[in-house]
Amino acid sequence: MMRKATFSLCAFLLLLAGTLAGQALAQTDPLPSWNDTAPKKTIVSFVEQVTRPGSPNFVPPAERIAVFDNDGTLWAEQPLYFQFLFALDRVKDLAPQHPEWKTQEPFASLLKGDVKGALAGGEHALVEIVAATHSGMTTEEFKQIVRDWLATAKHPKSQRPYTDMAYQPMLELLDYLRANGFKTFIVSGGGIEFMRAFAEEVYGIPPEQVVGSAGKLNFEMRQGKPVLVKQPAVHFVNDKEGKPIGIQRFIGHRPIAAFGNSDGDLQMLMWTDAGDGGRFCLLVHHTDSEREWAYDRASSIGRLDKALDEAKAKKWTVVDMKDDWKRVFPWESK
Amino acid sequence: MMRKATFSLCAFLLLLAGTLAGQALAQTDPLPSWNDTAPKKTIVSFVEQVTRPGSPNFVPPAERIAVFDNDGTLWAEQPLYFQFLFALDRVKDLAPQHPEWKTQEPFASLLKGDVKGALAGGEHALVEIVAATHSGMTTEEFKQIVRDWLATAKHPKSQRPYTDMAYQPMLELLDYLRANGFKTFIVSGGGIEFMRAFAEEVYGIPPEQVVGSAGKLNFEMRQGKPVLVKQPAVHFVNDKEGKPIGIQRFIGHRPIAAFGNSDGDLQMLMWTDAGDGGRFCLLVHHTDSEREWAYDRASSIGRLDKALDEAKAKKWTVVDMKDDWKRVFPWESK
Repeated sequence: MMRKATFSLCAFLLLLAGTLAGQALAQTDPLPSWNDTAPKKTIVSFVEQVTRPGSPNFVPPAERIAVFDNDGTLWAEQPLYFQFLFALDRVKDLAPQHPEWKTQEPFASLLKGDVKGALAGGEHALVEIVAATHSGMTTEEFKQIVRDWLATAKHPKSQRPYTDMAYQPMLELLDYLRANGFKTFIVSGGGIEFMRAFAEEVYGIPPEQVVGSAGKLNFEMRQGKPVLVKQPAVHFVNDKEGKPIGIQRFIGHRPIAAFGNSDGDLQMLMWTDAGDGGRFCLLVHHTDSEREWAYDRASSIGRLDKALDEAKAKKWTVVDMKDDWKRVFPWESK
Repeated sequence: MMRKATFSLCAFLLLLAGTLAGQALAQTDPLPSWNDTAPKKTIVSFVEQVTRPGSPNFVPPAERIAVFDNDGTLWAEQPLYFQFLFALDRVKDLAPQHPEWKTQEPFASLLKGDVKGALAGGEHALVEIVAATHSGMTTEEFKQIVRDWLATAKHPKSQRPYTDMAYQPMLELLDYLRANGFKTFIVSGGGIEFMRAFAEEVYGIPPEQVVGSAGKLNFEMRQGKPVLVKQPAVHFVNDKEGKPIGIQRFIGHRPIAAFGNSDGDLQMLMWTDAGDGGRFCLLVHHTDSEREWAYDRASSIGRLDKALDEAKAKKWTVVDMKDDWKRVFPWESK
């Protein structure tokens, strides 16, 4: 009896608190770094549709899955993917232990600062660089290596830590969706262990909600303790067709909202869009050569071509970074 | 000003509600189907240690990860793994479309009801059976096939639906851990798509918290719609050494509690146990030939041999099903 009374009382208090919190939220602009242009309006109207009880497009919280590409969607990806810049710095750090690299490509060119020359070797060169910098250590050692790099390395253009290159409007969007009962996931072609080293601190996304490309792991005993050792072999590439596959494998239900910026995200957006009920697909279009970078169909990094055509055909939301974002980076003056 | 007031009021209400809920919880026994023997006491003391603020072993909610094997830990696995019994039923259902099976092993033996004969072909036979019953359809078609089977198939001993073969004490344990801020995951050698078809309904574990073995998937367009088609090829086997690897890949941090019942769970328990701070490892020992089954070192299904020795050496908790569980299945009279 006592317990029953307590429960109904706290149910009432929670309900009341929820209502008040809801009212409080409604009084603030959850997306202050977005201009009041179409994308912001579309986002807010979508969120209201899927969260309003009784709405024809209402979606229960358990199904409010939102997936975000990382490079070029949550943080910048120019002049090169940040994980590749990390690998280049690692090659320099490791060079003293590899005298043979002085004459061995792609390392010889890299150590001379000639990235173009190094990448002339194509995919093989890239695999060599990733293997040399992303394997041989335990998963815990690798996490520490990435964190040490993030703590010291500076972005070549902004001269700020790479984690400062996250997009303020997207950070607000992540918070806004979570405040509305969404579960936010990263679904990126980037390395899963690399992203997990900062995703929680920068995006508020815990390790178990990061989906990415992965190398093979070995379970080994070292000094009587089990460790997981990163192997120089690819387990799964979470890009293009790989993104819906990664979503199914890691998340197991279809997202209702997907956010990307390149052709690598096309299949993820198609997969999200093909579900029933309220759907939201968004592309970040890099159009701001002053505050960020301007690139799309012709870019070798984050090429946006087929997906831009598909977005027009399917009426997906396309963010014009220059016109739709009041602020790009958190450190810009408001 | 108005908003500030609202926030502090609802903060107060939430705090109050939380306190009342906490008191209410403290008044009830969260594990009524467990006898008051050592395992129950150890579980409760572990949970109190890691959740009490200021306790030396306090663990923040984000790190309260608990992993559970499925077959033999959350539900029964005799006389054969339920997923294998599902495959056998599928072979019968599909036989009319495969006249060649009448003479082709392992199907010919299976259709005569001779499972032993069918499995004489060893791993190759098993792969044949899984490929024939677990591939060729989309992920959504497969989910429906499993759900239809669960809705109609009966367990050979209890003559009840297979989902009734979940262990009541483990269902209570899942709820108890979640009520204390734990995030509960399945980490099983079973098929990930098979388990997701019932894990949320039976265990309260959502698809994104199910880790299991997986076949390859293909992204395809069918009638202009994207689908994911299950392929007759293995992507990852989440058993033995595969379990810590699956945990790292899907969850990305080390669990603080792990629950299993066989040698297939040994590496998962070792991986969990090797972390710092409060740790909890438990094995379910099948000792109840009347209410369930009694088997361990000599069993071909759920063999518990090395892990039982390791549990003694490491002082892990071993549940003696006969002595420690008041009730095994939810439908047993209390």
